[in-house]
Amino acid sequence: YDYDRPLMKTQVPGPRSKELTKQMGQIQNNTAINFFCNYEESRGNFLVDVDGNRMLDVYTQIASIPIGYNHPALLKVVSDPNNASAFVNRPALGILPPESFVDKLTEGLLTVAPKGLNRVQNMACGSCSNENAYKAMFIWYRVSTARLPHPGCPELSILSFSGAFHGRTMGCLATTHSKPIHKLDVPSFDWPIAPFPRLQYPLDEHVRENAQEEARCLEETEDLIVKWRHKGMPVAGVVIEPIQAEGGDNHASAAFFISLRKIASKHGCAFHVDEVQTGGGATGRFWAHEHWGAEDPADIVSFSKKLLTGGFFYRDEMETDKPYRIFNTWMGDPSKNLLLAEVLNVIRQENLLAEVTRTGKALLGGLYELQAKYPNLLSRARGQGTFCAIDVCKASVRDKLILQARDNGVILGGCGDLSIRFRPALIFKEHHVHMFLNVFSDLLAAH
Amino acid sequence: YDYDRPLMKTQVPGPRSKELTKQMGQIQNNTAINFFCNYEESRGNFLVDVDGNRMLDVYTQIASIPIGYNHPALLKVVSDPNNASAFVNRPALGILPPESFVDKLTEGLLTVAPKGLNRVQNMACGSCSNENAYKAMFIWYRVSTARLPHPGCPELSILSFSGAFHGRTMGCLATTHSKPIHKLDVPSFDWPIAPFPRLQYPLDEHVRENAQEEARCLEETEDLIVKWRHKGMPVAGVVIEPIQAEGGDNHASAAFFISLRKIASKHGCAFHVDEVQTGGGATGRFWAHEHWGAEDPADIVSFSKKLLTGGFFYRDEMETDKPYRIFNTWMGDPSKNLLLAEVLNVIRQENLLAEVTRTGKALLGGLYELQAKYPNLLSRARGQGTFCAIDVCKASVRDKLILQARDNGVILGGCGDLSIRFRPALIFKEHHVHMFLNVFSDLLAAH
Ligand code: FES
Repeated sequence: YDYDRPLMKTQVPGPRSKELTKQMGQIQNNTAINFFCNYEESRGNFLVDVDGNRMLDVYTQIASIPIGYNHPALLKVVSDPNNASAFVNRPALGILPPESFVDKLTEGLLTVAPKGLNRVQNMACGSCSNENAYKAMFIWYRVSTARLPHPGCPELSILSFSGAFHGRTMGCLATTHSKPIHKLDVPSFDWPIAPFPRLQYPLDEHVRENAQEEARCLEETEDLIVKWRHKGMPVAGVVIEPIQAEGGDNHASAAFFISLRKIASKHGCAFHVDEVQTGGGATGRFWAHEHWGAEDPADIVSFSKKLLTGGFFYRDEMETDKPYRIFNTWMGDPSKNLLLAEVLNVIRQENLLAEVTRTGKALLGGLYELQAKYPNLLSRARGQGTFCAIDVCKASVRDKLILQARDNGVILGGCGDLSIRFRPALIFKEHHVHMFLNVFSDLLAAH
Repeated sequence: YDYDRPLMKTQVPGPRSKELTKQMGQIQNNTAINFFCNYEESRGNFLVDVDGNRMLDVYTQIASIPIGYNHPALLKVVSDPNNASAFVNRPALGILPPESFVDKLTEGLLTVAPKGLNRVQNMACGSCSNENAYKAMFIWYRVSTARLPHPGCPELSILSFSGAFHGRTMGCLATTHSKPIHKLDVPSFDWPIAPFPRLQYPLDEHVRENAQEEARCLEETEDLIVKWRHKGMPVAGVVIEPIQAEGGDNHASAAFFISLRKIASKHGCAFHVDEVQTGGGATGRFWAHEHWGAEDPADIVSFSKKLLTGGFFYRDEMETDKPYRIFNTWMGDPSKNLLLAEVLNVIRQENLLAEVTRTGKALLGGLYELQAKYPNLLSRARGQGTFCAIDVCKASVRDKLILQARDNGVILGGCGDLSIRFRPALIFKEHHVHMFLNVFSDLLAAH
């Protein structure tokens, strides 16, 4: 059902997009709008805009479209009259769940539960998933340490990393450090921020320097945990992305994460792996943290985006002691669980994780070739599965390349200061990689 | 399409609900679950559970079902093949909106824009609506005062009221004070909390005492604003519910709100009216603040629940200066805007606001009669439209009455320490009021 190639009729945004963007400016801030889309006509890996341009989508709504646009299996879920009720009667899931909800969780989310995490709390987006995961860690910390000097709101903290992104509501925002504009003018908490390793790529050619850098970061992290305890604001939880996404696709080794998890445990801090952007298969494993090969990877794993709903998996010990502590009106949306169950079926039936691994090899291989050919323009190609990135010499050149690629039928996204990130759907195949590489190498040659 | 009366087969929760609740306990915290529902069989004002019990729903999923279960107009939206794409392709609305989105906002949300608020930012739930409204006020305050002593995260605050509920993510939670368990163990901000008036009901029989109480609260609010400015943590915004809902259905007079809004303006604070629970018609006006008759009621009005999506309306001056400041991946969900547009049509076609006013009179009249008959059990009947409440002498009696009503086919909710709150859908008619009153007065007589 996919299209076979891009088809461009105008520059992007075209006249119709520009007109609609202007109209939107009358209603709300329109300054982030790229263009307006015709989602009805979009299919598979191709996003169609309102001016009739059809583009290969390697960004997929900020990494949130799992199996492409208008997948027939998902359309079937919506057109099935048995499902209509789930779309029109949104329940307060925490108090009045639908009959099928236990089954939906068992056949859906729990089939992809991370190792050791048997429980899952459904939520609605990445922000409420992380906010509530933090609350669960605070509550666990207070209940498990039985240290209650001041009942009420305690002085506790979450340790996060430089360059991290965990969302923009105020609890999440206190742990987000990817771009200054996200935090400007908004009050925050005085919580510790540890350095995330700045590694050299390809990782396997810089093993020794990278190990040193990671050791430095681990040491500083442990120091901060001790320091904040002495300050009287102990670290209840450590939160980290398995690959820092918004912050510039920063990787670290399995050994780093495993050591970090040990340090957290040693000091009685919960360990929260935020897989909102990495989860759902793009790294070639369902969860990026599976690449660590750890027996006991985390206490909490949060998710959203490609999983269509939000939530977090957690260890039995992290269960809250009382009702209404992790709670809100909707607690997710069962209609999203219906769609997610179908996404998981498609991933299995079409063996998409293996496909992603194959496609990712072609993509990363192509990026390596390009950076060898254009060493003054490109560097630091890196990735796992199709979750890849490459750096461009200057931000202005990066931004220009992204716009030029779009006018030539390929949608890319930036991240960090200098990176282009690749976030295709799981149905992105080798021939789509070549479509992208052709467009991109022409642009580089013309630069 | 509505049922004509309750039909009870078991106590609630029945055996099937109990079994499912037990299963749910294997997966997540199940301690807040009331019972499991058969949403397919539920219709109009009646919620059907998995044991075949059919109950008159006067709580409606914590006040979030606008026009009853399985309304034919909403089922039609879902079954229309033209809408399928909106349900399966959830866009990143802030960057790639669908072609129809401007129209959907114009024909939908903007038709109910509060006075003076011409702009609307779509969000996904009450929490992200309030979190982002707070951020908008912080940004507005910093940009408009041009006071930037420390670039980065400033010391600013939001003033809220005792007994308030504005959500449970960490920014919202700092302004929520309805129940201690909501805040326990979670770090918070040191922001000012003003007293919300404790009025005597019926309001028109206690005009003088109530006016004194409101004057006291206004004075204390103004003192707090001054005090926090001197502390170096000025109040960027004042947030208030037009009727405090979770906190116990606390009302205040139009004069109180209008004076409060003036005090906020005088001190350069934005004024945010949180209509997440009150908005959508239950008070007999689309917004509860319309009852104030103010020309210039607010700078920001947030909403969710009955509006199916979330968001906030705002004054032109509150527009942010740059892209990506009020932003997240999804920024709402256009499929909810489709359903909302249909809800607004039904409200107009069936003249539901007038109907709510009529039904509300019957409900409040009935509550007045009951409290006159049972003065030792009931007191403080109050309400606007069907957004009514009554207090019970003791929390344990209140809780027992709610459970007994449920076993007799009427779903009620509690709020505050002693109150029963009434939150029917907008299609709740006088004969439903009588159905409830019959059950309730039998219970009171038997007490
Ligand atoms: S905070 Fe997640 S949907 Fe609102």
